[in-house]
Amino acid sequence: MTSDARRQRLSRACLTCLAEPGDRLLGELLRGRQPAAVLAAIIAGQLPPVTGEPPQGPDRDPGVVTRAMRRWAARAADMPTDSDLASWQRRGIRLICPGDAEWPTQLQALGDTGPYALWLRGSADLRFGCLRSVSVVGSRAATAYGAHVGTEMAATLGERGWAVVSGGAYGIDGCAHRGALAAEGLTFAVLACGVDHPYPAGHAELFDAIAAHGALVSEWPPGRTPTRHGFLVRNRVIAALTRGTVVVEAGLRSGALSTARHARDLCRPLMAVPGPVTSAASAGCHEIIREWGAVCVTSAADVLDHVGLAGDHLSERRCGPVVPHDALDRLTARVLDAVPARGGAGPAAIAVSAGVDMDTAICCLGALAAGGFVDRCEGGWRIRRPPR
Amino acid sequence: MTSDARRQRLSRACLTCLAEPGDRLLGELLRGRQPAAVLAAIIAGQLPPVTGEPPQGPDRDPGVVTRAMRRWAARAADMPTDSDLASWQRRGIRLICPGDAEWPTQLQALGDTGPYALWLRGSADLRFGCLRSVSVVGSRAATAYGAHVGTEMAATLGERGWAVVSGGAYGIDGCAHRGALAAEGLTFAVLACGVDHPYPAGHAELFDAIAAHGALVSEWPPGRTPTRHGFLVRNRVIAALTRGTVVVEAGLRSGALSTARHARDLCRPLMAVPGPVTSAASAGCHEIIREWGAVCVTSAADVLDHVGLAGDHLSERRCGPVVPHDALDRLTARVLDAVPARGGAGPAAIAVSAGVDMDTAICCLGALAAGGFVDRCEGGWRIRRPPR
Repeated sequence: MTSDARRQRLSRACLTCLAEPGDRLLGELLRGRQPAAVLAAIIAGQLPPVTGEPPQGPDRDPGVVTRAMRRWAARAADMPTDSDLASWQRRGIRLICPGDAEWPTQLQALGDTGPYALWLRGSADLRFGCLRSVSVVGSRAATAYGAHVGTEMAATLGERGWAVVSGGAYGIDGCAHRGALAAEGLTFAVLACGVDHPYPAGHAELFDAIAAHGALVSEWPPGRTPTRHGFLVRNRVIAALTRGTVVVEAGLRSGALSTARHARDLCRPLMAVPGPVTSAASAGCHEIIREWGAVCVTSAADVLDHVGLAGDHLSERRCGPVVPHDALDRLTARVLDAVPARGGAGPAAIAVSAGVDMDTAICCLGALAAGGFVDRCEGGWRIRRPPR
Repeated sequence: MTSDARRQRLSRACLTCLAEPGDRLLGELLRGRQPAAVLAAIIAGQLPPVTGEPPQGPDRDPGVVTRAMRRWAARAADMPTDSDLASWQRRGIRLICPGDAEWPTQLQALGDTGPYALWLRGSADLRFGCLRSVSVVGSRAATAYGAHVGTEMAATLGERGWAVVSGGAYGIDGCAHRGALAAEGLTFAVLACGVDHPYPAGHAELFDAIAAHGALVSEWPPGRTPTRHGFLVRNRVIAALTRGTVVVEAGLRSGALSTARHARDLCRPLMAVPGPVTSAASAGCHEIIREWGAVCVTSAADVLDHVGLAGDHLSERRCGPVVPHDALDRLTARVLDAVPARGGAGPAAIAVSAGVDMDTAICCLGALAAGGFVDRCEGGWRIRRPPR
C-alpha cells in the first residue's frame, strides 16, 4: 500500500470517529474529493478543494457546511492514529473502505448516505458473503412463535448457502444469527456500536461465534457505545447489504420496520412472515404486507423464490456481476438493455425505453443494482463500470 | 301476476329441477328465449325458437344441445307443479327469478352460468341484504384460532350493518353465521341442497336461526340432497352475491379457495386472514395472499376499508346503485364515465378511454358492478339500465 493510500484509509477511519454515520453532507463532501483533503479541511475549518469530478450535490449554504465542520472538528481528539489501527488489527479488527476488494459494492445504492468506511471483526469476507444474503430481522420482544420461525428460516437459508444478516439484538435478530450458525452458514451482525464491545453484552458469546464464522460489522469505530438513533441509522446498512429483507415478527412500532422501509426505498425485495392476527407481535408484519406490498412468506423456500434471480445456482463463486447477463429473466434483461452506459437515465425513461411499466422498471432496477449490473448516479441509473 | 308470468316462473322452477346449476349451455339457451319455451323444447326434444334478441353465445354443435336436452328431459318426472310451489310457499319457501324485485342484480356478473332461479327460506330480502355484504368462508376443519377470528369478524361486520354470506358448513362457515347472528346482523347461507332439508343436519338449529334473521338460499329445488360437485358450483354464487370475499382459514386444498377463485375471477375484492405459518390450516390463506394478490386483513375494519366504496355510510337504505355517483372515488368515477350506455365496451377500451391502466379498469369495473352501476354484457360492460 502506498503511503498516500494509507493516509486516505486513516482519514476515512478518522471520519468514522468525527461524524455520525449516514451524514448526507459529509457524503456530498466526499464525492469527488479525497478523504484526506476533506479531513484536513474539517480540522482547518475550511471547505476542502475539489479534485477530480466536481461534486454534483445540492448547493449547500456555506454556513451549514461550516457549522457541520465545526461540529465534526469538535471530536478531533478521538481520531485514531496509524498505530491505533495496527493495534486494532492485532486484535482482529480491520477497516474496509470503498474501493477495497472486500467493500460491498451494493452499498453504493445508499448514495451520499453510504458508510464512510466499515469496521469488521470476523473471518468472513463481507463482499463475497453478502452476494447471496438475506436480512432476517424482527422485534426484540419476540414470541415463542417468532423465535421458532426465525431460527428455522435462518437455518434453512444457511443450509442452502445463503448468508443471514441481522442486527445482533435480542429476540428475532439473535434467533436469526443462531439459526444460521446452527446450520454452519455465514452470518453477519451489523452493529450500532464498536465491534470490540458489541451490544448487548448478554450476546457476548453469540458475537464471538458470529466473529468466528462470519463477521461483526459496524460504521462506528471501536470503543463507541450505541445510541437509540444509531440503531435506526444502522438499519439502512442491513437493508443495503442484502438481496432482500424478511421481517419475521414485528409490532407496529418495532424498529425492524425501519429496516423494512429502507429495503423498500432501495427497491430491494421486502418480505414478511404472517402470524396470528390476535398477536400484536405480528401486527407490523401484517401492516407491511397490506400497505407496503411486502411479500407474504412462510418459509425459507418462499424467501429464496422471491430473492433468487434466475441462474443463481449456476456457480458458487462469482466475480463482477452476481449473475451472468444471459441468466437474467426476460423482463429484467429488457430493463438492463434500456439502462444507458453513460450519463444515466431516470426510471421513467428506462421504463418507456424497455416497454415496461414504471413499477416493473423500478423493481428490476433494484434487482439489477443488487446483482451488480447497474449503479445509481446523479442522472438516475447507469451501467456499472467494470473495475479498472 | 299474469298467467304467462306465472307460467314463466313455474318453468324456471322446473329448470332448477332438470339441469344442474351453472350449466352454461342452458344459460345460453335462456338468453333471448322465454323460460317456458326452453322448457317446452326440452320436453319435446327440439331446439327452442328464438324470441327477442338472438342468442349470441358460441355456436354449439346441435348434437351437444340434443344430448343435453335429453339429459335434462330425463328428470321431467321431478318437475314441480303450481300446487307444489304453493305448498312450498306455505312452508316458507319462495322462488325468486331474474327480473324480480328481490333478485340480486349483481348475479349478472356470472353471465351464462348465473342461477336460473333461487329458492329462499327466510325473512330477509336477498337483494337488499347483499348490497352491503361480505362472504366469510373457510375450512370445515377450523382450528380454535380460525373459529375465534371468524366469529369475531362476522360479529363486527354484523354490528356495522353488513350482511355475512357463507356456505352453512361446519367450521368457519358456521362461525361466520353465528357471529353475525350474535351481533343481530343479517346473514345468508347459500346451500348446495334444498332449503327444506339443509345440510349438514347438525346445523339444523343454526339454519332455523339463519332463516329467522336472514335467509337460506339455494339453486337446488326443495328435497334435493347435496353432491360433492354441487358445493363447488355453489361457491360462485357466494362470491357473486357479495361485495368481497374473506377467507378466514383454509388449508391448501380447502374448498374455500374455490370461492376465493370465483371472487378473483369476478374482480371482486378478495381478502384472507393470515395465521401462524406453522399451521397448515392457514397455508391456503398465505398462498392466496402471496400468489393471487389477496389482501391481508386482520380485522373487520380492514375488510370494510377494502370493500367499502366512498360514501358507503351516507344512508342506510338505498335503491338503485348502492352508492351515489358523486360519492365514488376519483378513479372509479373516471372509469364509470368511460363505460358506454349502449352496446358495451371491453375493459381495454374502457381503460384507454378513462386514461387508467388495465388492472385499475378491471378493479373499478368490479366495484362498479357490485355497486350496481354497470352490467356485464356481450360487448363487455355497459351502464346498468334503470329498472322500467
